Amino acid sequence: MRRLLITGAAGQLGRVMRKRLAPLADTIRLADLARLDPPERDEECMSCDLSDAAAVHEMVAGCDGIVHLGGVSVERPFDQILGGNIVGLYNLYEAARAHGQPRIVFASSNHTIGYYPQTERLGPDAPYRPDGLYGVSKCFGEALARLYFDKFGQETALVRIGSCTPEPTNYRMLSTWFSHDDFASMIEAIFRVSTLGCPVIWGSSANDAGWWDNSHLGWLGWKPKDNAEAHRIHIEALTPRPDPSDPTSRFQGGDFVNNPIFKE
Amino acid sequence: MRRLLITGAAGQLGRVMRKRLAPLADTIRLADLARLDPPERDEECMSCDLSDAAAVHEMVAGCDGIVHLGGVSVERPFDQILGGNIVGLYNLYEAARAHGQPRIVFASSNHTIGYYPQTERLGPDAPYRPDGLYGVSKCFGEALARLYFDKFGQETALVRIGSCTPEPTNYRMLSTWFSHDDFASMIEAIFRVSTLGCPVIWGSSANDAGWWDNSHLGWLGWKPKDNAEAHRIHIEALTPRPDPSDPTSRFQGGDFVNNPIFKE
Amino acid sequence: MRRLLITGAAGQLGRVMRKRLAPLADTIRLADLARLDPPERDEECMSCDLSDAAAVHEMVAGCDGIVHLGGVSVERPFDQILGGNIVGLYNLYEAARAHGQPRIVFASSNHTIGYYPQTERLGPDAPYRPDGLYGVSKCFGEALARLYFDKFGQETALVRIGSCTPEPTNYRMLSTWFSHDDFASMIEAIFRVSTLGCPVIWGSSANDAGWWDNSHLGWLGWKPKDNAEAHRIHIEALTPRPDPSDPTSRFQGGDFVNNPIFKE
Amino acid sequence: MRRLLITGAAGQLGRVMRKRLAPLADTIRLADLARLDPPERDEECMSCDLSDAAAVHEMVAGCDGIVHLGGVSVERPFDQILGGNIVGLYNLYEAARAHGQPRIVFASSNHTIGYYPQTERLGPDAPYRPDGLYGVSKCFGEALARLYFDKFGQETALVRIGSCTPEPTNYRMLSTWFSHDDFASMIEAIFRVSTLGCPVIWGSSANDAGWWDNSHLGWLGWKPKDNAEAHRIHIEALTPRPDPSDPTSRFQGGDFVNNPIFKE
Amino acid sequence: MRRLLITGAAGQLGRVMRKRLAPLADTIRLADLARLDPPERDEECMSCDLSDAAAVHEMVAGCDGIVHLGGVSVERPFDQILGGNIVGLYNLYEAARAHGQPRIVFASSNHTIGYYPQTERLGPDAPYRPDGLYGVSKCFGEALARLYFDKFGQETALVRIGSCTPEPTNYRMLSTWFSHDDFASMIEAIFRVSTLGCPVIWGSSANDAGWWDNSHLGWLGWKPKDNAEAHRIHIEALTPRPDPSDPTSRFQGGDFVNNPIFKE
Amino acid sequence: MRRLLITGAAGQLGRVMRKRLAPLADTIRLADLARLDPPERDEECMSCDLSDAAAVHEMVAGCDGIVHLGGVSVERPFDQILGGNIVGLYNLYEAARAHGQPRIVFASSNHTIGYYPQTERLGPDAPYRPDGLYGVSKCFGEALARLYFDKFGQETALVRIGSCTPEPTNYRMLSTWFSHDDFASMIEAIFRVSTLGCPVIWGSSANDAGWWDNSHLGWLGWKPKDNAEAHRIHIEALTPRPDPSDPTSRFQGGDFVNNPIFKE
Repeated sequence: MRRLLITGAAGQLGRVMRKRLAPLADTIRLADLARLDPPERDEECMSCDLSDAAAVHEMVAGCDGIVHLGGVSVERPFDQILGGNIVGLYNLYEAARAHGQPRIVFASSNHTIGYYPQTERLGPDAPYRPDGLYGVSKCFGEALARLYFDKFGQETALVRIGSCTPEPTNYRMLSTWFSHDDFASMIEAIFRVSTLGCPVIWGSSANDAGWWDNSHLGWLGWKPKDNAEAHRIHIEALTPRPDPSDPTSRFQGGDFVNNPIFKE
Repeated sequence: MRRLLITGAAGQLGRVMRKRLAPLADTIRLADLARLDPPERDEECMSCDLSDAAAVHEMVAGCDGIVHLGGVSVERPFDQILGGNIVGLYNLYEAARAHGQPRIVFASSNHTIGYYPQTERLGPDAPYRPDGLYGVSKCFGEALARLYFDKFGQETALVRIGSCTPEPTNYRMLSTWFSHDDFASMIEAIFRVSTLGCPVIWGSSANDAGWWDNSHLGWLGWKPKDNAEAHRIHIEALTPRPDPSDPTSRFQGGDFVNNPIFKE
Repeated sequence: MRRLLITGAAGQLGRVMRKRLAPLADTIRLADLARLDPPERDEECMSCDLSDAAAVHEMVAGCDGIVHLGGVSVERPFDQILGGNIVGLYNLYEAARAHGQPRIVFASSNHTIGYYPQTERLGPDAPYRPDGLYGVSKCFGEALARLYFDKFGQETALVRIGSCTPEPTNYRMLSTWFSHDDFASMIEAIFRVSTLGCPVIWGSSANDAGWWDNSHLGWLGWKPKDNAEAHRIHIEALTPRPDPSDPTSRFQGGDFVNNPIFKE
Repeated sequence: MRRLLITGAAGQLGRVMRKRLAPLADTIRLADLARLDPPERDEECMSCDLSDAAAVHEMVAGCDGIVHLGGVSVERPFDQILGGNIVGLYNLYEAARAHGQPRIVFASSNHTIGYYPQTERLGPDAPYRPDGLYGVSKCFGEALARLYFDKFGQETALVRIGSCTPEPTNYRMLSTWFSHDDFASMIEAIFRVSTLGCPVIWGSSANDAGWWDNSHLGWLGWKPKDNAEAHRIHIEALTPRPDPSDPTSRFQGGDFVNNPIFKE
Repeated sequence: MRRLLITGAAGQLGRVMRKRLAPLADTIRLADLARLDPPERDEECMSCDLSDAAAVHEMVAGCDGIVHLGGVSVERPFDQILGGNIVGLYNLYEAARAHGQPRIVFASSNHTIGYYPQTERLGPDAPYRPDGLYGVSKCFGEALARLYFDKFGQETALVRIGSCTPEPTNYRMLSTWFSHDDFASMIEAIFRVSTLGCPVIWGSSANDAGWWDNSHLGWLGWKPKDNAEAHRIHIEALTPRPDPSDPTSRFQGGDFVNNPIFKE
Repeated sequence: MRRLLITGAAGQLGRVMRKRLAPLADTIRLADLARLDPPERDEECMSCDLSDAAAVHEMVAGCDGIVHLGGVSVERPFDQILGGNIVGLYNLYEAARAHGQPRIVFASSNHTIGYYPQTERLGPDAPYRPDGLYGVSKCFGEALARLYFDKFGQETALVRIGSCTPEPTNYRMLSTWFSHDDFASMIEAIFRVSTLGCPVIWGSSANDAGWWDNSHLGWLGWKPKDNAEAHRIHIEALTPRPDPSDPTSRFQGGDFVNNPIFKE
């Protein structure tokens, strides 16, 4: 690619991907509402409020691919989610439509299905069971992406990210961990494959204790290499065993089901 | 019920249900942003902008059941859909949570799945394929309702309405027609059944040429009585045969797939 | 048939079937541990304790068909269930094996799946979720029947009876009612079809509010004629509305899930 | 339609359809290798050997629709099946491709799945289990039709005819009967629907004892009106009960599984 | 755990697990009707007849987990199976209910499904097809365990053990072998996971030629390490090739389908 | 085996298998219409036109196993396909029936399903979607093989070969490659297993980017060892990236969907 856009580039995951995705394009365009580290060689930095349609158009113009990590990525009051994840997503897809339909990696979330029990294994077509407003906004996003695919042919990978951290650090992450290496290689595969369509892709490593079934994806030619199981001994040594009666250890969404937003 | 709320009561469908649902409750509360006909005996009228949280709370307070027909019901620019169907729905569910969780009939739509071909028969778990922004807003609404069910036990019937009109008047309605009688008897069954949960229910009559399979619903004890087939001769006599190459006659969403909003 | 055996013939259902099945065979052999009304023309009466193997062999000898209604038919302490429904069933199948393998109608029960929620529709292959020891004994019986089919070719209809009563008399029976006429015509079809195998058959009438799907059964050539819905007004007038928080109105097994046996 | 072609028009079924389909087109073109009754008003007659490509092209030219009943319709030695059902079908589809792709009703057969047991209910996607060379030739035909649909958009209804006779006359036909009325109304629906695609359609009436599930077909707007069950008493009176050990009464294909061709 | 109970501890498998499971608890309680080797450090030995309810209560009291290997583990006459596997299992679950519901590993068996052909791959929900009375008793046990889960929340792992031996020693074991290491690590995972529920788990190693699909189990975090394929050359060298016409080499239950019990 | 027949032995794949399968039988009989290299030790060579029934009978007589690679293996005009793949296959199965029913490996093809999109993963029961006349002939062959299995017990492995070449040399082969080693070990497993039946087996290596799911096959005890992914860098360096708008990169059948035969 000539220019790859990474949104939410100032966030934790964005800063990681900024480095790892550099080989994918001549120029990496980095965008965020928060302050970004200054551009290095072959980088461009833009400030962008996703709820500002004109700004989003400017951000998208000239890009051949988009890794959309921007917007709110944890549970927040509805008005905060509305701007970045609802209006912002609409703005992003309208901008993509206006600017040549670059392929999009959409950072969706396991919180679209967080109310399934941890003893169930899910395929890509399991009906939504979001665990909070953040999860609902990601359901909205997936539906919007599908609309633009059916209507305009816009391709998107709907990546339902588990826990994308340097290492798994608690019991739940034994099931949900998605290593930085595996996410980076997945993004590479998404941009490499000649036809993408608009598939749901579970964003997790090859965890022995995984909940999500990516076997529909053979054609992508991507195989995760990491396995949270390698960290089990460490986790068992350092963290307390989950209480089975706590919703946190019963539902896939973990502590999102004990959402404090609604407790006000 | 003591008090049943009908939102969108000034609309075409709202005016019909206002009359037919009267026997279900001692008082019918009618709400709309548009002007309502003056209240008759056992009716209350309220003006309510769904995007105004306080107004929605006031509207919901004191009701034992809600038939939510309000919001935008056709394709519209995104900013119009945002207020009524996104923010408005959040307001409605927060109000229901604050006011005793009255059972809700949510007027969802076949436009959540409008991009399926007309030669496919759908069950309730078919993944979303919305045909426009309106359809996407209904996907959002269904996901939000499911969240409130899993988190708080709020019961909702997700009724994906086909074409709810006095009579079927074109070829597509031979498949999608939902008679006023059948919708009214469905609402009655929804409020009658002792456990509802949060099911998807296809809103269509017993049409010979129907696309949607309600066989998962036996337990509701509802059977549609009307069949659009009885109107076929009339329709064939009065309306031109659809052109097979037109998307309108290939996809279940009909002319929503030729959405003028996006043509600007 | 020359001789049809009805076990449990002194029970409520047995007394009904005694009359209705008379046309199916030259002789009806009636058996029960309890006292039977004296034999009428073309009837034979036998006392039989199902847990007594020799008695069961004697009872089965010479019969061309068996309608097995015998054993315990409600929740009871385990030792009572053991004799009639576990040992008794083994005795019955061994006797059938020794005496020409007459086709068997086995009165299984909806209590094999009583812990499914009332909002779910079940096919014949849904995994067992019994609601009590009685239900577990019927799971045993179905497994035993399947063994004798696979090993010896013994044919059995595994009829999961709902509520076989003269009329539906409460809310749950709107879903579970199985009219005497429909059970009798089902038994007739079971003995009429040239190949039976060992199918699960839901024993319920054509109830609008039914939970069970017999669509796999087309080949049997049996259609129920009755519909509990015709009795809804009567039931709603005479019985109190079920409390939605009571397990009785949440699970298909009804009040079996509030099983007093385990309360001791 | 202006001109509808019926092949195999001198056969039993062809002679029936010749009369019944007259209202569907201005002109009915009748073709067969066997001698046809002379044309009546609005009819044309052609002699055609299906294995002669040029003759088939001439037969198809100028037609808007085709009801293909031609070829061998019972079990025959392979060389006879080869000409009419293999080469002949290829000729027909090549001719249709050359002459405007008229919609085709292809008389496929239940003998494509004749080795399924009679106690199984089949949907349209059950893998083939043909019961003879005739059945294999119909599998070939369905695959060829699908190829022309995927490659060229040629629409075909793959009608797997059961037993299309004036009345059901034996036990098996209680399951397989397809009344002339129902076949005629099905053909009418096939030519009426605006998009057809290339669906499998089971050709049987609404028989209580039917084996085949057409519920995927809602969209066609066709409902069979007849039911072989009405003839059960007559059949039971006049024909001997099938022997359960005879393959004829175990497999859906009936006596085709006792195929004499292979007995040589 | 403080105290783990192993029943059937004097049996072949019990003696192996006695050693391997020692690290799982402070004290291992060993129980059997047969004579046990004397207790070593951190062990307790009890004699227990499973059909004696009082003895079973005493055995279960004070335990935090149970590995239930006790009862009859091969085909036997019904009266022997009745005591240990039917009455005994009821006693065990009643005792567990009275004593704090320790988590249970129930040694179920592949003989619950032994009549499936060897060319079929099975998931956990395949309907039962037991191959003998022993298999039927395990179906009973699984249904009983499910009842106690649905009614009381008692958690059980329903482990359908294949062939748990030191090494695979015949052709069938290439598919069914379950190494001691893999069973031990599975038990460890079962007691480790925070929520268990009541799942069916296939008890076999990672055999290339395996018949059973554990892919629903990801969440357990258990992966078998052994593969019977490593022993193929040895088996082919030492044992005669199975005769394809023998039921033993056609059905998954192997020689259980040639059950001598029924031959009397 | 004493004598293994390889048809099509002069072809590319035939020449490879001639060498690799030598250990499977005392004698390898090689047959082709084209000129074969002279027989080596333990080899026999025969010229055979598959459309000549007598020649095929002679070829098959005395063989214990058949690897049928013969016939046309690429898209060709229909008359060429007819002789080798339609008539020839019938001749082969009739000859096998007459000569002791040796087990057959039938080289079917991915072109039976070539019109599925590359973003779909297929199991063995996906309905046919052939991409050309060659693919249709393989559908015919699979149906014929199934007939001979159901009617006579003739066992066949229906191997849907992907791209069986020394190395993968283009983008599509990253998904379809079937290494010579993997095909040879598969054939070995097919002849080794005691019961085969008539299964569909996808002929591809363990490619990361594979489209086809062989997980139904556990029982065969065969695991592919090669993975086209190891060749990705080489392919990406040497071949142009496929154009996403070209059918070749959208459908599984690759350039067969641009079939020149039909372009005449």
